[in-house]
Amino acid sequence: MSVVSLITDFGLRDNFVGLIKAVILKINPKSQIVDICHDIKPQDISEAAFLLKNSFRYFPSGTVHLVVVDPGVGSKRKKILVKTKNYFFIAPDNGVLSLALRDERPLKIIEITNKKYFLKPTSDTFHGRDIFAPVAAYLSKGENIQKFGKPAKSFKTLELPRIKVSNHELNGEIVYIDRFGNLVSNIDKYTLRKFIKNKRFKISIKNKTIDKLSSSYCAGTHFGPLALIDSFNLLEIAINCGSARDYLRVAKGEKIKVIRL
Amino acid sequence: MSVVSLITDFGLRDNFVGLIKAVILKINPKSQIVDICHDIKPQDISEAAFLLKNSFRYFPSGTVHLVVVDPGVGSKRKKILVKTKNYFFIAPDNGVLSLALRDERPLKIIEITNKKYFLKPTSDTFHGRDIFAPVAAYLSKGENIQKFGKPAKSFKTLELPRIKVSNHELNGEIVYIDRFGNLVSNIDKYTLRKFIKNKRFKISIKNKTIDKLSSSYCAGTHFGPLALIDSFNLLEIAINCGSARDYLRVAKGEKIKVIRL
Amino acid sequence: MSVVSLITDFGLRDNFVGLIKAVILKINPKSQIVDICHDIKPQDISEAAFLLKNSFRYFPSGTVHLVVVDPGVGSKRKKILVKTKNYFFIAPDNGVLSLALRDERPLKIIEITNKKYFLKPTSDTFHGRDIFAPVAAYLSKGENIQKFGKPAKSFKTLELPRIKVSNHELNGEIVYIDRFGNLVSNIDKYTLRKFIKNKRFKISIKNKTIDKLSSSYCAGTHFGPLALIDSFNLLEIAINCGSARDYLRVAKGEKIKVIRL
Repeated sequence: MSVVSLITDFGLRDNFVGLIKAVILKINPKSQIVDICHDIKPQDISEAAFLLKNSFRYFPSGTVHLVVVDPGVGSKRKKILVKTKNYFFIAPDNGVLSLALRDERPLKIIEITNKKYFLKPTSDTFHGRDIFAPVAAYLSKGENIQKFGKPAKSFKTLELPRIKVSNHELNGEIVYIDRFGNLVSNIDKYTLRKFIKNKRFKISIKNKTIDKLSSSYCAGTHFGPLALIDSFNLLEIAINCGSARDYLRVAKGEKIKVIRL
Repeated sequence: MSVVSLITDFGLRDNFVGLIKAVILKINPKSQIVDICHDIKPQDISEAAFLLKNSFRYFPSGTVHLVVVDPGVGSKRKKILVKTKNYFFIAPDNGVLSLALRDERPLKIIEITNKKYFLKPTSDTFHGRDIFAPVAAYLSKGENIQKFGKPAKSFKTLELPRIKVSNHELNGEIVYIDRFGNLVSNIDKYTLRKFIKNKRFKISIKNKTIDKLSSSYCAGTHFGPLALIDSFNLLEIAINCGSARDYLRVAKGEKIKVIRL
Repeated sequence: MSVVSLITDFGLRDNFVGLIKAVILKINPKSQIVDICHDIKPQDISEAAFLLKNSFRYFPSGTVHLVVVDPGVGSKRKKILVKTKNYFFIAPDNGVLSLALRDERPLKIIEITNKKYFLKPTSDTFHGRDIFAPVAAYLSKGENIQKFGKPAKSFKTLELPRIKVSNHELNGEIVYIDRFGNLVSNIDKYTLRKFIKNKRFKISIKNKTIDKLSSSYCAGTHFGPLALIDSFNLLEIAINCGSARDYLRVAKGEKIKVIRL
């Protein structure tokens, strides 16, 4: 068995994801295909990059992670294949791999150019089906990474909102909102702990302040927001059995601040 | 092969379901994972319980049924594993298994406590990934049920709306509405038949009455609701090629009555 | 391994798709089930037929394609099984297979009647679970096609909007709109090329005209629609990183015209 994971912005309304799976299984009938997410906002590279970063390491060693969020399909943007210690990553070279590859060092980068592995005819509008899927399938079958193209030195990187730390303030922002309406910030557990130490603090978002970290969603009352370190290891604002997004009426990009008292 | 079925309220917008599958496949690469439903209304334990009850018996013997609808994650609510003649069930102990376990007698109940089987570090916010998924995976690999924790005597049960039968009336309510807008009541085929016998009857919901049971959705006209015994073996109100929910403007909880004439 | 592909209008909100998979795996634990699409508009046979036609050939040889869009469930409509050179197709006989079967000639047509292969009891409301799923499973296990019923001579066909070609005009219409809002017409690449030859032309839809074919979505500006041959090999109207549906405010059935200058 070899696992291929998928992140796309194709949704499930059309046959796009089904075709990618068909192509993979035709080439490697023994592959196990796992959907991470197909509901990326169309063309939202940074959302896909965020989910990949927070997913890849839970997969079995050897997994081929395929990401097709590809606003540049058919343009001159490159297609890349990256090998790390534990995984393979395949995607258009638009930065979508760059957050994951901060955590897992690239050992080899290949620009995918060998048409031998492409579906024929090869469309200019659906590289997911015609190029990325067959490459993922042959790779999952054990084909040598060098065969898919030529070595490359670098790949595009995303500039994500960074945390700003001053003497008394940690400034971040909401970078992801999940289906429950939980607000995920870019403030990670390690930075937060180092900043807070054992001091008192308050967290401020919109017109609300929260003065402690809860250990779980149940810890809050039904009537107000709570803060916790979530399963991404990020500072998150939530409402017990409710939606913090709806309660606070915030969107991605909303500022969040931790103030040392 | 061993099948793991999944019911969650995680939706498919995030990477939560993908992570559960990743964790399972990392531990048991030979497992087959089948989605029953991930679109349970957030925290709606009774909806999940209803779908589990109406799904589990169609699966191969030995299937591990994993349900993660878990408003109490991180609280002191227990995590349980139940063995029946044909299946295993894993869930937070919040009643979500109780409807299925009326139909399939529990042979052993284990409170899941053995941290050896948990992902490390173990979050307090995502037991689906860190506790339930690995336990399901090890169980599907054949690990002895006793190893996961200590025997328990009981599990939480749900109080569901019961049918009331009087001399001339059977009173029930709508407990589920499917994507087609079909209205599923809690009046089961056996109770209905025993009540009706060969007598004439009428079914009343909102301001409509229906005086016969149809054998299929096509039997009705396009212009009015029909009643039938559905594939759950429950009395259902439907519209041929239309939505009874929209036509009658009803929601879950709407009363439905069968009157013997 | 043997692949079973699924197209249904069941959505993913209920347990219907999960039950079909359960039934298949119970009978043939070695089958690989691939979702093509479950989000067909309820009872929209022509949408399902369109997606099947544009999907089936990407699957491994031997794949069983199962389509359950079945407004006539429980009526006298037939259930059919069709063998072609490379594939098997199973569906209610309502025309849903007919577009695919123009591209892949039927070698044998069987009317499914042998109750031996049905789930017992067999409901009149969910043939997907009780009849089509078990037949697909036994077929994927290698059961002889003749055993499922009796030979039939024909199957229902769909009348789809046809392209009208006059001296200077090619008249078609939008037959599919994907999740990105791309407008897919019924004008295929071959007809278009034959019509245009090397002449100048303009494409007209609603109040817009486009005077060239782009090779990919990126080729257009952000501010206007572009035309291209899409991955279905059909003439498509799109907006680079935007929705042509929203921009032009059109729905399925909108007329599109190619005029030779």
